[in-house]
Amino acid sequence: MIKSMAKNAAGHYARRALLPEGFRDQLAPRAEQEGRLVSALMETFLAYGYDRVAPPLVEYEDSILFGPGAVRAATMFRLMDPDTQRPMALRGDITGQMSRLAATRLKSAPRPLRLAYAGNVLRTKGSQVRPTRQFIQAGVELIGSASLEAEVEVIALAVASLKKVGIAGLSLDLTLAPLVGLLVDRLDLDAEDRLSLIKALDAKDVGGLSVVPEHSRDMFTRLIGCTGPADTVLPQLRELALSGAAGQLVARLGRLIDALDRRLDDVRLTVDPCETHGFEYKSGIGFALFSASAQGELARGGRYLIDGGDDGFEESTGFSVYLDSLMASVRPADRAEKIFLPFGTGTDIGAALREDGHRTVAGLTEVSEPGQEARRLGCSHIWRDGTVRAL
Amino acid sequence: MIKSMAKNAAGHYARRALLPEGFRDQLAPRAEQEGRLVSALMETFLAYGYDRVAPPLVEYEDSILFGPGAVRAATMFRLMDPDTQRPMALRGDITGQMSRLAATRLKSAPRPLRLAYAGNVLRTKGSQVRPTRQFIQAGVELIGSASLEAEVEVIALAVASLKKVGIAGLSLDLTLAPLVGLLVDRLDLDAEDRLSLIKALDAKDVGGLSVVPEHSRDMFTRLIGCTGPADTVLPQLRELALSGAAGQLVARLGRLIDALDRRLDDVRLTVDPCETHGFEYKSGIGFALFSASAQGELARGGRYLIDGGDDGFEESTGFSVYLDSLMASVRPADRAEKIFLPFGTGTDIGAALREDGHRTVAGLTEVSEPGQEARRLGCSHIWRDGTVRAL
Repeated sequence: MIKSMAKNAAGHYARRALLPEGFRDQLAPRAEQEGRLVSALMETFLAYGYDRVAPPLVEYEDSILFGPGAVRAATMFRLMDPDTQRPMALRGDITGQMSRLAATRLKSAPRPLRLAYAGNVLRTKGSQVRPTRQFIQAGVELIGSASLEAEVEVIALAVASLKKVGIAGLSLDLTLAPLVGLLVDRLDLDAEDRLSLIKALDAKDVGGLSVVPEHSRDMFTRLIGCTGPADTVLPQLRELALSGAAGQLVARLGRLIDALDRRLDDVRLTVDPCETHGFEYKSGIGFALFSASAQGELARGGRYLIDGGDDGFEESTGFSVYLDSLMASVRPADRAEKIFLPFGTGTDIGAALREDGHRTVAGLTEVSEPGQEARRLGCSHIWRDGTVRAL
Repeated sequence: MIKSMAKNAAGHYARRALLPEGFRDQLAPRAEQEGRLVSALMETFLAYGYDRVAPPLVEYEDSILFGPGAVRAATMFRLMDPDTQRPMALRGDITGQMSRLAATRLKSAPRPLRLAYAGNVLRTKGSQVRPTRQFIQAGVELIGSASLEAEVEVIALAVASLKKVGIAGLSLDLTLAPLVGLLVDRLDLDAEDRLSLIKALDAKDVGGLSVVPEHSRDMFTRLIGCTGPADTVLPQLRELALSGAAGQLVARLGRLIDALDRRLDDVRLTVDPCETHGFEYKSGIGFALFSASAQGELARGGRYLIDGGDDGFEESTGFSVYLDSLMASVRPADRAEKIFLPFGTGTDIGAALREDGHRTVAGLTEVSEPGQEARRLGCSHIWRDGTVRAL
């Protein structure tokens, strides 16, 4: 029966082998390298006192699309639970699941709550910067502390975890996601003008400031110029003498930069207060990490509010690393060294070599030229005359 | 805007926090322990010369439901690719993906091909033995060797990987999946009688042998009795003096048991030649591993044929460990020890402790009773007077 099933389908794989766009098979040594990167990141998170949690890949739609998840609604795969006929979704982000945990099962766990995670996320559409539709997201959330020290810890941890996996020449870009909204709301613009102004600020397009009343135009023009190294931008931002919540945000940014300067002496700090794209759900300071050796951003994070229901809101600060970006930024791993054990080599010899941390490849049949066979199988070494010899 | 979105949804999580049946949040220390088990299994696979590969969670339906995947068709989640409108499925098993890789991208890689994998699989329905609908499958495939040594290696690796994660008292149950089919096909029964006989043999129900012609009834009765320790069952099976392919299968079983006896002196060997359930796709000897400390089976595997298209079939031998079963069989991990660093502790102290392999929890704000705060946060130790003290 097996044979006939197989025969009917002969050549099936050859014809159907294509994967959907944006999904891929990771092969050796890449798949192993990615696994090791995830483990190394997680070890750093755990060393800073974060507890690993692992929420499922699938949730009910109304649970996963809530809160931070709402931003991802359009790009999540939907599926039906055949048991309950309730719509479910595949997660496109893990941050929202941390919020759910904090507000439910871990509601009465002591604060601040430190959670770490690593797992696959899936999206219906790849983007230009991220063409893959499945990738691993690893990160942390520090939940329940409004202190500045929370941002400092999370940023320091993001930096430490990237350094641990060999990323050098890091720069940290700080954003003030709510600032633009706070300043624009003071202008009493109609919805259309409001949106065009936010876009102009995001694009740093001075020409787009025409909708701003004259009394404020100078301030916005100067704000657009406030982009670059923290030590030049921070004085410029302070000179704007913003009042109220906007002023408090700038003051907090100043204190954060002071603290980071003391703690992260080898990380370049930049500020981009008008950057809002991708930080829509952030309620305070946001950040992204770049490296001279990488094309795009390696990690991003910031502060947002978790809806705890009747218990009100909780401040949360966290960051995520995306493994596809990280993999593109590290030196590709070499193929592992392997020792070929010709057929008939004692099993105790293989066991002892593996115990010493070597990888062995056992010959399954007698061959006339074991050295040739070892090379054919991609081994770097062979067991011969009672010792390991390089090929 | 953020505040008002959040307010509208106040209490949302509290109402909607339920996960679909069979999906769950793994919390600390369980999620960490599972991650470590997967890493430890993978390290053993790599030590035996297997290369890690990582196929995607999603494939086109006609690709993933082919071959070994066909067995899982009824229990796989389906979803639509919005790009191409082609139906896709979430993998319910990784073995079939290894077949696909062997027959396509790794078609010209040298044989035998040794592949290792670990990742999530999802199923629409939980079973009685496995109520979860998402769990991690980790395993290997040794592709392109018909040698007996291939079975020996894969079984030895399964045993080694389980021992490495602390499973003791292992027993190995060997099955002969095609044997029943080979013997029943000789009887010239109609379809109904054929099926009822296979069921009777699987259930070891002697009463169900009434459909067997008299000349063969004694043989089948004795076959049903052939269940138990390898050293008693093997002579009984040999006494049946089966001819043709059935006889060859028994002879191979004998040689395998000899080889395993020499290599695995602390594993109890049993034989169950009539067991076919769950081994439907196996083309040769199958096996399952049990432990005195575990309820169900911990690993299963065996030999099957991969359809290589125009290039014909390839013999493959492999096994899988399911992490839900494994987690149920290992001692639950204790919560990790953590050292509380009161607010203001120098960052170099935390760095040095982490460098030494400790986990630290930084106090984010000044508190009057650091010892109390450390306990509240679940720490086992505190940094006080220039040293680490137990709480």
